[in-house]
Amino acid sequence: MSLVTVGSVAFDAIETPFGKTDKIIGGAGTYIAFSSSYFMKKQNIVSVVGEDFPQEMLDKLTDKGVNLEGLQIKEGEKTFFWSGKYRNDMNSRDTLVTELNVLEHFDPIIPDSYQGCEYLMLGNLSPDVQLKVIERMEKRPKLIAMDTMNFWMDIAMDDLKKTLKKVDILIINDEEARQLSGEYSLVKAAKVIRDMGPKYLVIKKGEHGALLFHGENTFFAPALPLEDVFDPTGAGDVFAGGFVGYLASSDDISFENMKRGVIAGSAMASFCVEKFGTERLENLTKSEIEGRIQKFVDLTNFKMD
Amino acid sequence: MSLVTVGSVAFDAIETPFGKTDKIIGGAGTYIAFSSSYFMKKQNIVSVVGEDFPQEMLDKLTDKGVNLEGLQIKEGEKTFFWSGKYRNDMNSRDTLVTELNVLEHFDPIIPDSYQGCEYLMLGNLSPDVQLKVIERMEKRPKLIAMDTMNFWMDIAMDDLKKTLKKVDILIINDEEARQLSGEYSLVKAAKVIRDMGPKYLVIKKGEHGALLFHGENTFFAPALPLEDVFDPTGAGDVFAGGFVGYLASSDDISFENMKRGVIAGSAMASFCVEKFGTERLENLTKSEIEGRIQKFVDLTNFKMD
Repeated sequence: MSLVTVGSVAFDAIETPFGKTDKIIGGAGTYIAFSSSYFMKKQNIVSVVGEDFPQEMLDKLTDKGVNLEGLQIKEGEKTFFWSGKYRNDMNSRDTLVTELNVLEHFDPIIPDSYQGCEYLMLGNLSPDVQLKVIERMEKRPKLIAMDTMNFWMDIAMDDLKKTLKKVDILIINDEEARQLSGEYSLVKAAKVIRDMGPKYLVIKKGEHGALLFHGENTFFAPALPLEDVFDPTGAGDVFAGGFVGYLASSDDISFENMKRGVIAGSAMASFCVEKFGTERLENLTKSEIEGRIQKFVDLTNFKMD
Repeated sequence: MSLVTVGSVAFDAIETPFGKTDKIIGGAGTYIAFSSSYFMKKQNIVSVVGEDFPQEMLDKLTDKGVNLEGLQIKEGEKTFFWSGKYRNDMNSRDTLVTELNVLEHFDPIIPDSYQGCEYLMLGNLSPDVQLKVIERMEKRPKLIAMDTMNFWMDIAMDDLKKTLKKVDILIINDEEARQLSGEYSLVKAAKVIRDMGPKYLVIKKGEHGALLFHGENTFFAPALPLEDVFDPTGAGDVFAGGFVGYLASSDDISFENMKRGVIAGSAMASFCVEKFGTERLENLTKSEIEGRIQKFVDLTNFKMD
């Protein structure tokens, strides 16, 4: 099966209680692509960078089997840059700098070779851009998954609601689910959000795990209890990449398989937070990933009499 | 098997965003006894009340099979009273009133008929009183479980450390685990706390579930996602009562069975929060409890390829 990921490929500068980075590579598209690459040998990215983006990083993505034909490189422009600082509990962060740069007028191009893809992952971007991508797919993918954030709810709720009508599964965090639905209870929030369009909903709760809702079914996956969370940046995107990569590689969108996808995504996210940026995701082995997934089995497995 | 529970039998007055109670029956011992009564036909309580405590409530406990021989009724004295108000998120609360009354000089008496019990549950009380109970058991129980709270860490840490050395399993919440250990990461906190004595540790995370630690093993149980949490008072005690009641009734303290105990405790706690005080716990049926446990199975069950 083929997967198209739309999302930012960007620069980040991150400060956590454990340390501080200069400009490093980040962006939702980057994290999703690295993560899904461990499940999908072939995938495609739609994004945009400036001429300041290092070829070396593009080569790393290519090495992971990511087709960059849909990645626009804008001469004379600069790559999207975000800088943030995590508070001591690592659960909240302050944005220090946001420079939209090439993202300000991003007009996504879907190369012919991407047409006919069965799985589409819309990383966090303007809902208007997300909608354009859906409309520019000649044939509707079998599964469209989407991320978004509070920012778009604040400034583009109408566009967001339009896009939500077109997607199968929304993947957001608990605060976003509360803001989008106006409900504090996540069970109530899930009902409201699924009435907006997506039949499936994943609510990520960071260190407290993730919930998957569909129809009358609910599935819960914990996050792996870790001694240290070094840098949470990108963990949500890595979750999404692992989730959708798992679904696409198995080409099975049953609820049972989505549960496995949630576990795969959770396992990938647990690697992400161990180092700054994409570092931990660049060179994972199959057995490391299988071992991590087994930890989730061990952590949650019980049998009542 | 026989179970002895030590804990307060008390009056509470509770205010939540959903409503407000007058003086109702509460106390860790009450909640633990109600909860464990669904697993244990015979159990025993060690506690103290004033002459103002209603006989009707004592009769309800007796009806549940709770032996009250170790419950002292102090003529001319008043029952322990606590009053609190929950904030809008239901995750934090402010104590409005604490009147120790009979608890101030509580000297626990262990009736002869309680001696030889195999399971001992020490509800949240002064660690000095908890230690006295252990010392007054002629034969050490097979399993001693214990709860405590931040208050005792603030004012009686030395006593608490002495008592911790004597117990097998500590059941506390995440904030308490952090304060007791001085570690923010629960994985690190668990190591520090188990070095203080208890070989087993349960860390309750409220709506985010519970973790069980022993040796190299970790087990995680979610809380049931609920539309409304009406009143969280006593949920932690009800968890402990279901947990220890399950262990005692099956008389199996293997890690595999402790996992089942954590699920049983989580199921009981999910009932507790549905109504004010002990209301929801007074008349549960076996099939309601089995149905609730099945919800935990459905919520967490997955099978990787």
